[in-house]
Amino acid sequence: MKGEFEFIQNIKKTFLLEKVGDDCAVLPKDDETDMVVTTDMLVEDIDFRLEWTTAEFLGHKVLGVSLSDIAAMGASPKWAMLSIGIPEKIWKEDFVERFYNGWHDLAHQFEVELIGGDVSRTPDKLVIDSICGGEVPRGKAIVRSGAKVGDVIYVSGKLGGAAGGLALLERGIEYRDSLPETERNLEIRQLRPIPRVKLGNNIQKLNVASSMIDISDGLAADLAHICAQSSVGAALDFIPVDENLTKIFGDEISLDHALHGGEDFELLFTVAKQKISLLDNLNVIRIGAITSNVGIIELIRGGRSEILQPKGYRHF
Amino acid sequence: MKGEFEFIQNIKKTFLLEKVGDDCAVLPKDDETDMVVTTDMLVEDIDFRLEWTTAEFLGHKVLGVSLSDIAAMGASPKWAMLSIGIPEKIWKEDFVERFYNGWHDLAHQFEVELIGGDVSRTPDKLVIDSICGGEVPRGKAIVRSGAKVGDVIYVSGKLGGAAGGLALLERGIEYRDSLPETERNLEIRQLRPIPRVKLGNNIQKLNVASSMIDISDGLAADLAHICAQSSVGAALDFIPVDENLTKIFGDEISLDHALHGGEDFELLFTVAKQKISLLDNLNVIRIGAITSNVGIIELIRGGRSEILQPKGYRHF
Repeated sequence: MKGEFEFIQNIKKTFLLEKVGDDCAVLPKDDETDMVVTTDMLVEDIDFRLEWTTAEFLGHKVLGVSLSDIAAMGASPKWAMLSIGIPEKIWKEDFVERFYNGWHDLAHQFEVELIGGDVSRTPDKLVIDSICGGEVPRGKAIVRSGAKVGDVIYVSGKLGGAAGGLALLERGIEYRDSLPETERNLEIRQLRPIPRVKLGNNIQKLNVASSMIDISDGLAADLAHICAQSSVGAALDFIPVDENLTKIFGDEISLDHALHGGEDFELLFTVAKQKISLLDNLNVIRIGAITSNVGIIELIRGGRSEILQPKGYRHF
Repeated sequence: MKGEFEFIQNIKKTFLLEKVGDDCAVLPKDDETDMVVTTDMLVEDIDFRLEWTTAEFLGHKVLGVSLSDIAAMGASPKWAMLSIGIPEKIWKEDFVERFYNGWHDLAHQFEVELIGGDVSRTPDKLVIDSICGGEVPRGKAIVRSGAKVGDVIYVSGKLGGAAGGLALLERGIEYRDSLPETERNLEIRQLRPIPRVKLGNNIQKLNVASSMIDISDGLAADLAHICAQSSVGAALDFIPVDENLTKIFGDEISLDHALHGGEDFELLFTVAKQKISLLDNLNVIRIGAITSNVGIIELIRGGRSEILQPKGYRHF
């Protein structure tokens, strides 16, 4: 039997999604503007657990995931649609109103308008498909395929927090306001991620990035996407680990979460050396450089280089 | 406990989808063109059963449902996305390749390009969200709210076939090439509906329709949408019943299917009297007229008028 990762790769090939696959599809809108559009499906007990999250958090997260894809193109979000499949167990509750409140609070923040959607019944599990459209100046969408040898690699924040939060939830530590700050910070990164919309937009306006992606599958896996589509390699010499992680998990596990944990929704991007001074006013972290070792991602620690194997797609 | 129909209406209100709810959302694209966009979620054992359909038929149908929404705006489809949630039981099979073949054959026919998508795992049931975008000359999208008292009501074909096909499938009569023609014709209408894309486009080019919708929920329910959004009523004096239906189900059940059966995906539209000569070259059927009895749909049979109660939302 095929493994899940192989199976999904195979589907992407069948559907030609690899060819078109960036964080968003890009379509010409008018002479000055391109439209970007993205779709993300979140499935109960695969992508979230109702007993671990709240309706408000979930509403926030489904839009956040889409906004992060828009941000990764350097685009500005404009509109959204929601297709929701709802099992009978949820009909009785105020779940949907609370879900919408969470969704709307984030949408309002970025002036995203809900323009349509679909509602269906499901036999058992909640399923949400989030669709979001945005705009970017014509030809200026930042794709994954533009990284060049010698470019410097940056991320927009510390990594691994969302995976650490998931690990705590898996241990049965429920999110609540009374949780110690360290645990709460980690779980909130998993349950209520903040998409880097303004930063993505600023990076585009500065015309500074040669490639960009958002970290949804994990630093190593998402950097591997950039490397594959740009036909380059990468060497990382600094991994910015979420400081909440190390307090609980120790150095090795924390590094593993930072390298391979998904859903941090930070931006990962590359910049030509002669342009890096343009980043002075942005709060971003230099983590390494693009190399000519096509498809190889090296981690340099204590003067030694080891090759990182992307652990790939992580559902829970 | 709330019923499903009431619950879904409530969600649509919460999410303001009623306000924006037409077959597609309409967005300005450039000076000459509007973009239309639609999303439809199809859930296993709610909207389809794997034991009743084939992978190819399902691939065709998920796109067909979206293309029918595009057609109902008088627009031309341009691009599509697919979010698919796939249970492990399907990994082992060639299901996905066959699904894609069915999808692609229909997409190719209307030059629709797959520009992106998402693939997720599901615990148990197959879930597909189909997103489709199209274009229509600026301000020319045909909405549900334009019907005027005195307008003539048309449909694009005979009705009830898809519901008849569903009834046969529910009786355990599996689709196969060796099925008698009558049964096969009905089941194929349920399993492999033909969206009226060219007709919708022609109706738009002729500038002839004051309102339009596709028949997905059933003639009575979809006409009720036009009446609600146009603040009018309707009187029907001719119901074009699929001739395959009457051979199997008799007159009364066949009429019920034609009035209330969903998923025929014919177009239902209204035309001002002075414009009806423009329809001479189109293969459409006159079924009644718009009245001033706001929200009331009458059926006139044998000189007597009865009020039709929309039976509402019907899943498979």
